[in-house]
Amino acid sequence: MCPRFARRMANVRPSAIREILKATEQPDFISFAGGLPAPELFPVSDIRTAADRVLAEAGPSALQYGPTEGFAPLREDFAAEMRRREVICSTEDILVTTGSQQSLDLIGKVFLDPGDCVLTERPTYLAALQAFRSCEVRFAPVPTDADGIIPEALPEYIEREQPKFLYTIPNFQNPSGITLAAERRREIYSIAARYGLVIIEDDPYGRLRYAGKDIPPIKSLDGEGIVVYLSTVSKVIAPGLRVGWTVASPEITRRLVIAKQSADLHTSSLDQRIVHRYLADFDSNAHIERIRLAYGRRFAIMESCLRRELPEGFHWTRPEGGMFLWVTCPESIDTNELMQKAIEQKVVFVPGRDFFPDASGGRFMRLNFSNATEEKIKEGISRLAQVCHDAMAVCAATC
Amino acid sequence: MCPRFARRMANVRPSAIREILKATEQPDFISFAGGLPAPELFPVSDIRTAADRVLAEAGPSALQYGPTEGFAPLREDFAAEMRRREVICSTEDILVTTGSQQSLDLIGKVFLDPGDCVLTERPTYLAALQAFRSCEVRFAPVPTDADGIIPEALPEYIEREQPKFLYTIPNFQNPSGITLAAERRREIYSIAARYGLVIIEDDPYGRLRYAGKDIPPIKSLDGEGIVVYLSTVSKVIAPGLRVGWTVASPEITRRLVIAKQSADLHTSSLDQRIVHRYLADFDSNAHIERIRLAYGRRFAIMESCLRRELPEGFHWTRPEGGMFLWVTCPESIDTNELMQKAIEQKVVFVPGRDFFPDASGGRFMRLNFSNATEEKIKEGISRLAQVCHDAMAVCAATC
Repeated sequence: MCPRFARRMANVRPSAIREILKATEQPDFISFAGGLPAPELFPVSDIRTAADRVLAEAGPSALQYGPTEGFAPLREDFAAEMRRREVICSTEDILVTTGSQQSLDLIGKVFLDPGDCVLTERPTYLAALQAFRSCEVRFAPVPTDADGIIPEALPEYIEREQPKFLYTIPNFQNPSGITLAAERRREIYSIAARYGLVIIEDDPYGRLRYAGKDIPPIKSLDGEGIVVYLSTVSKVIAPGLRVGWTVASPEITRRLVIAKQSADLHTSSLDQRIVHRYLADFDSNAHIERIRLAYGRRFAIMESCLRRELPEGFHWTRPEGGMFLWVTCPESIDTNELMQKAIEQKVVFVPGRDFFPDASGGRFMRLNFSNATEEKIKEGISRLAQVCHDAMAVCAATC
Repeated sequence: MCPRFARRMANVRPSAIREILKATEQPDFISFAGGLPAPELFPVSDIRTAADRVLAEAGPSALQYGPTEGFAPLREDFAAEMRRREVICSTEDILVTTGSQQSLDLIGKVFLDPGDCVLTERPTYLAALQAFRSCEVRFAPVPTDADGIIPEALPEYIEREQPKFLYTIPNFQNPSGITLAAERRREIYSIAARYGLVIIEDDPYGRLRYAGKDIPPIKSLDGEGIVVYLSTVSKVIAPGLRVGWTVASPEITRRLVIAKQSADLHTSSLDQRIVHRYLADFDSNAHIERIRLAYGRRFAIMESCLRRELPEGFHWTRPEGGMFLWVTCPESIDTNELMQKAIEQKVVFVPGRDFFPDASGGRFMRLNFSNATEEKIKEGISRLAQVCHDAMAVCAATC
């Protein structure tokens, strides 16, 4: 067998979420674990029409190799969307990627060397930790509160840790659901600009707001060209197409393009053209409005079930958008152990540890409310509440 | 701007091919440069029907996240194809990748550390050099002749260089067009097994044979589990779909899956299902037969034009399949300089240097014969021959 494998793979753990997803493919399981959109809301018939038009009208080109940067009309679609979000942006600033996960991978390749430091929120997205961890970096989580990263804490971390970049999910953060307040975005940007610190702004959920007012991205403040913004069509059209994009300065984009050329040459020509055609021929805003209404309703139902059914001592965030809420359990609870009991009851969530670079966070759990139907949310929270009550009873008896 | 960029990106050069492709998008250019299949042979209407059926029958699943390993029925399609090529193989041994380029990238991530050595043919595929180079490795090219790698030379290289693996393209090699002889495959495998050396067997062109007899892949000999085999639908269905696969031992596959999870989660669900549906509902063998006939004819035309028109002192390979032939020019010629003159005459090829790890190979050029029509091949070789005659005349006058 292979004599030596790369040292760095030892640092990469299979994602707990994907392992849980696999374990729970039986139909009677109710899953709050994955970050899956609601499949019954996918615009299947519009995508079908778009695919048919693409292949009828541009078949050979849609099946041929294409430029690494992406299909030019789709790059312009994304640039136009960024301009609507107050980002000064042209087609050349856009790189189409094979989903946001690839954007994270390319960013790791372009920016990170072994031993480097990455600043993150705490908790943060586990697949970002995984992508950056494969570059053998260390993480320094920055203090946060209910409004996201605390700007005053940042300079000390920058000076002490000399990080390569700050990674943040400013809207409806994964896993916490927290949104970085507008004035904090300005403060954080100005601190980063002062130190020449790159900001990686990961924004998959920005358009899924069902309460409150949209806040322009940090990238909209980026006179210095230090922000790399990334987003995806996964949550607003469909994740199976694997189409995302980055917005960055010409110099950073050039390097991301070189990295992408080695990674997969380019993103599927067919999928890119389908997304472009869908955006051109159908009312994607009306579609997103339907998703927002449905997810807002699902959140409200989950939240009211949690309020009614969870034992005292459990708390959770109330995000204004996105797909997740974050539950803080009493200190006596370990959610990895709770998970075992939950699996017996055929309900699953993601235990908190995987979202912490140091694997602390044993009293937290992430609940997804976008994927299950309203009936399943009610039934699933009822199962979960029973598991929590049992755990508290055991604790009362033994503690 | 960004204070420090990763050291490793300094090792990655933008591919000359893709730069040439960009420079020559004008319609009156004739390109023998890219490795592009003939778009007029793509099975557009069958793919259109397959796409429509997939979306009609399995729409939401075709647009949802899927397993990193790939869509199970497609993995089984590829396993069955491998078994037809005499490889003992089950569904679990297959990982679906976002094209062979991603397979190379994942192999780099799993196997290579900075400073490692990779054994290659000389010349070898430039995008493989590029993918491995980003891991900061060094290359040791093994001696080859008209039948591929010379087995007798191998032990010395293994002992001296302690390589992580041997990278080979056994069928109609890119760029040389050379095929590794059957008995050499056995000898090389047995040497590798003796030393515990991993072999990366890259086989994108294996099914594009238009003369001679198929030779089973090295993977068919792999009792030890030391061969990682990779292929793609790019040359036999369509490259724009970005669907490839690897065949490897369970242990290596497990590591490739972890690396792929970080790289892009999974390959497009829609594209995977379209390929599966196309293979199930249409006669892909008849389609490949059409491609083989067409490419065989194009090769024959290019070859006879070269014979008729190139000046004395030019030699070229006569591959039995694939998409490329490899021209050796007289020593007085530098093909980078020749390329500048060729661009003036609106014909392009790829100069040899990029296919050599040490950037030697200044007297070679790679010609692609799959992409241009028969008429364009005649006109293009005529332009190229004129450029070669001019270069020889200049040389005769000044040397």
